[in-house]
Amino acid sequence: MKPLKRISFRDTGFKYALSPYDKPVACVKPKETIVVETEDAASGQIRKPGDLRDREKTPFGNPLVGPIYIEGARKDRSISVTIGEIKPTIGQGATYLTRWNESYLTSIPVFKLMNVDLPNEAKICKIRDGFVYFSDRIMIPYQPMVGTLGVAPYPEAESTSSGVLPGRHGGNMDLPDIAPMSTVFLPVFHEGALLYLGDVHAAQGDGEVSGTAVEMPAEVTIKIDVVRESNAWPRIETGHVVMSVATTSAGRNLEDAIRIAFLELIIWMEKRYGLNRFDGLMLCSQVGRVRVGNLWTVAASIEKKYLKALQ
Amino acid sequence: MKPLKRISFRDTGFKYALSPYDKPVACVKPKETIVVETEDAASGQIRKPGDLRDREKTPFGNPLVGPIYIEGARKDRSISVTIGEIKPTIGQGATYLTRWNESYLTSIPVFKLMNVDLPNEAKICKIRDGFVYFSDRIMIPYQPMVGTLGVAPYPEAESTSSGVLPGRHGGNMDLPDIAPMSTVFLPVFHEGALLYLGDVHAAQGDGEVSGTAVEMPAEVTIKIDVVRESNAWPRIETGHVVMSVATTSAGRNLEDAIRIAFLELIIWMEKRYGLNRFDGLMLCSQVGRVRVGNLWTVAASIEKKYLKALQ
Amino acid sequence: MKPLKRISFRDTGFKYALSPYDKPVACVKPKETIVVETEDAASGQIRKPGDLRDREKTPFGNPLVGPIYIEGARKDRSISVTIGEIKPTIGQGATYLTRWNESYLTSIPVFKLMNVDLPNEAKICKIRDGFVYFSDRIMIPYQPMVGTLGVAPYPEAESTSSGVLPGRHGGNMDLPDIAPMSTVFLPVFHEGALLYLGDVHAAQGDGEVSGTAVEMPAEVTIKIDVVRESNAWPRIETGHVVMSVATTSAGRNLEDAIRIAFLELIIWMEKRYGLNRFDGLMLCSQVGRVRVGNLWTVAASIEKKYLKALQ
Amino acid sequence: MKPLKRISFRDTGFKYALSPYDKPVACVKPKETIVVETEDAASGQIRKPGDLRDREKTPFGNPLVGPIYIEGARKDRSISVTIGEIKPTIGQGATYLTRWNESYLTSIPVFKLMNVDLPNEAKICKIRDGFVYFSDRIMIPYQPMVGTLGVAPYPEAESTSSGVLPGRHGGNMDLPDIAPMSTVFLPVFHEGALLYLGDVHAAQGDGEVSGTAVEMPAEVTIKIDVVRESNAWPRIETGHVVMSVATTSAGRNLEDAIRIAFLELIIWMEKRYGLNRFDGLMLCSQVGRVRVGNLWTVAASIEKKYLKALQ
Repeated sequence: MKPLKRISFRDTGFKYALSPYDKPVACVKPKETIVVETEDAASGQIRKPGDLRDREKTPFGNPLVGPIYIEGARKDRSISVTIGEIKPTIGQGATYLTRWNESYLTSIPVFKLMNVDLPNEAKICKIRDGFVYFSDRIMIPYQPMVGTLGVAPYPEAESTSSGVLPGRHGGNMDLPDIAPMSTVFLPVFHEGALLYLGDVHAAQGDGEVSGTAVEMPAEVTIKIDVVRESNAWPRIETGHVVMSVATTSAGRNLEDAIRIAFLELIIWMEKRYGLNRFDGLMLCSQVGRVRVGNLWTVAASIEKKYLKALQ
Repeated sequence: MKPLKRISFRDTGFKYALSPYDKPVACVKPKETIVVETEDAASGQIRKPGDLRDREKTPFGNPLVGPIYIEGARKDRSISVTIGEIKPTIGQGATYLTRWNESYLTSIPVFKLMNVDLPNEAKICKIRDGFVYFSDRIMIPYQPMVGTLGVAPYPEAESTSSGVLPGRHGGNMDLPDIAPMSTVFLPVFHEGALLYLGDVHAAQGDGEVSGTAVEMPAEVTIKIDVVRESNAWPRIETGHVVMSVATTSAGRNLEDAIRIAFLELIIWMEKRYGLNRFDGLMLCSQVGRVRVGNLWTVAASIEKKYLKALQ
Repeated sequence: MKPLKRISFRDTGFKYALSPYDKPVACVKPKETIVVETEDAASGQIRKPGDLRDREKTPFGNPLVGPIYIEGARKDRSISVTIGEIKPTIGQGATYLTRWNESYLTSIPVFKLMNVDLPNEAKICKIRDGFVYFSDRIMIPYQPMVGTLGVAPYPEAESTSSGVLPGRHGGNMDLPDIAPMSTVFLPVFHEGALLYLGDVHAAQGDGEVSGTAVEMPAEVTIKIDVVRESNAWPRIETGHVVMSVATTSAGRNLEDAIRIAFLELIIWMEKRYGLNRFDGLMLCSQVGRVRVGNLWTVAASIEKKYLKALQ
Repeated sequence: MKPLKRISFRDTGFKYALSPYDKPVACVKPKETIVVETEDAASGQIRKPGDLRDREKTPFGNPLVGPIYIEGARKDRSISVTIGEIKPTIGQGATYLTRWNESYLTSIPVFKLMNVDLPNEAKICKIRDGFVYFSDRIMIPYQPMVGTLGVAPYPEAESTSSGVLPGRHGGNMDLPDIAPMSTVFLPVFHEGALLYLGDVHAAQGDGEVSGTAVEMPAEVTIKIDVVRESNAWPRIETGHVVMSVATTSAGRNLEDAIRIAFLELIIWMEKRYGLNRFDGLMLCSQVGRVRVGNLWTVAASIEKKYLKALQ
């Protein structure tokens, strides 16, 4: 069996923005499976106790691999990215607090007004046997996920950064659902789609409330395809659920992102399962679920078991 | 065995606001278990196909039973309400759309600007054998919950209504977690706490995105107690999780409610489990979960299994 | 000339909530002019340097005078309140910071997380000769206004408090435009309207960003009337502008309140001046103005000079 | 006198994003005055009655001129841009509605859910003698302003687009205060600052609530300089006021942008006028003013007359 194509940050260098202007680092065909090697969100700066995030040296977070040019991806289509295995490269991850995280707690500069700072702290977490060792006494399951996955957005897009606002193009969504065995559908805004990914987490809570997950360098196997149906916002599908993603890009609030995610899901359900949109709205009101990724991303989902009788 | 005290909306009439000024409809002792009979959120107006919500006749939604005076409840304490069995009174519930629901889809009067309306629609859902029959072809599990549970708030509280904004006093939180076997802790703002409840649902999705769940009249068994520890915001505890609730009262947005819920959870974990607040913040960032009740209420939770090694 | 009817907090006591359940303290006829004497927002606790707001003694802020029953006010009508002279009762006002104000700076309990507090500070400001003396070196114009003006809301209203969220019923709007020579139109939700007012300021900035203005006890002359046209949200009219108010009640954000205020203004302009609503929308986009009252209240306005050619 | 350097979109082509990666179109020295010729926000597509915005042909809005490299601009400094004369190039502007504007009315796709659209409409507005002719019967003053002015942001910046979210780097702020005789201070994130501008308006209301102002091609005279003091967010200064700008970038809401703008203004006042930050907070609460630019940008200001006694 021929080895899979391999794209590594060691060869491509770092990107911090999802840009339509960058030269592709690789070109893949529909249905091709590849392996992508990513660096961690701190650019490898936090590897042993006492290490600190150094913003002078590396001002940006979340280095990405990309753009990957996908043959046949054009504006009236979408691409699909199916996540395969996610392997930790160095057997550990790290989570940390710095004064930069304060914007996760509140966007208002009250710490600045009061002359206080968040403490600097980092935890190095070993990953072994399906567990992540948060501390001597607390272990948590290894549930790896891809934090940032997206295509090059419009130049006037809602954001072009891995560091901040995700949008219709995906980006830094931090959804624990982008995990092995799930497929992500993304709209295409530029020829070749221009896919980027990075920011892999060994585990992450909803909201990623300190600003960092267990950030780790990783090897991610993905299968890429081009699909005819197009979608306005990212979608995720697993064996059990269909899920629609929306974000707070363009200045909307999280409540409105939830509304958008559900309305997009409802219109998708109407198209795929023939469920009238107003019935779909009423059904989601009973069994819909909301996932909060980070404080800028939500996903609305419904289990397929409720819909299969309609097929 | 002596029958439990029984408080029914048939005897007490409807209340639509959680008010410190109302005369108690009953008085209970700490550790007492009672049965409360509640009317559905549409005040019984939707019982058969074709029924419509009539806002002229009954302008308000979510009729409540209360206030219930709790002996020993005073300002430096909290009350706990443990949910027992929730029985549907008439073997059915209803979910519906009306033009009033449009504020659930967006708070902007665009429908008014464009002279369009949401269609009027109602579904009567039979409840039997552990299922709710949403339609001929779609059945969903019976997962009953109490939509509105709260105490009389401060007069200048963030809201005093069952119909709208929940707050520190609880109220219309619409959390599927307020279900059999869970305990809700509420701060006390007035002597006797003055507890109200109603708005029971046979099933409800996150966000309750059409504006109504499967609304049903019900009999709810609850055990009430007074506890010494006080909490700023509602808390929920089950055998598996500890959970802190926050809302968008006072004009804050849902992101900020999520931040508050986690910070309150972290301070609670520090007090109960001795986990330093900054470690708690980092742990929640890996394994914390967010529940969206309605578009004004969130809860942040952590599974107790992560904390038991600390005891 | 017969002296005007006079309603004083000295006779009526304090109210902290705009409630449909309170017994009226006075009854007035359409077109009647009355004088209302109000206490300051700190209930008179801050009168000399060193005084502090004592929340144990008086937990609530913004004491109100009311409800005033207005003859002929009923659901399909609105009331108008024209502001006349506003006189400072004791020749001074006060502005202050306390730890309670922190929610004005951010709704997130970060101060609690970091164990810091806002400093306690109060300034007593003399009012004389048309000036307010903020400090030895800074004097500002005396521009008095009524901070809280509203009618009893629905029991399930968006808020029933003077302390917090204003809504369709008015309430704690903190708009500098509610000043001598302006008329406020309020919808009626209960027979008699049940008007409340208080929280008078000698001066106030947009957003009232520390949480307090120059709070003063005052005598306010108002002329009350009943009008046939009804409005969904409060309106303000002066000789120069028409203005529509909206708030963040019901969990919406300020952007959405701005959208509502403009859409309501546009529909009002269509009705009154015959300007097609889409032309009105485009005109407001060129010459509309936004006032931010407090962080929960906005008003959208247009100068009448742009509309007079249409009459 | 030597003619001023002139930079025209005719020579440089259009840019739609403020990017650190673009090649400068010109290089200027500190204290240099230049003339910039900009195209209108619709890329010239709407010039006579019946013209429509064609998104297939030109998908992006707000074409910009830039980047302009400024000698001596580096990270620890700021640049200042003083606005001189703003001349309409073709004696007219245009304002219009299209279905794309609906996101200005609400970010929720309710129009999509209900299958309705905003009407297509355009008004061509002659500009003459200091007036803008909105229609036969309505004329408004010519009050020109620069809608988009900004420097290249961080790659992980809050937005890199002229079309959408402004941020610390400026961008599409749509503040009527960026007008002749005002100076804008912008932080520098890249060597040479890399200045962009465009999107000139003949008049604009607060909030720009239809989504378009009176958009016109224009010649803008600006004087550029480099200053030693650096600022976290854009500042504006006129003869009368100092003003601090903040935006909803990074997912915050407008209330929080107002809080940031005032806290930044207060810290600026402390540094420049020696007014203690807590006194500054209390003073802004009495005489601070808020400008709403578009629904993503606010500015907090104070008149210098209140501060001059401190110098």
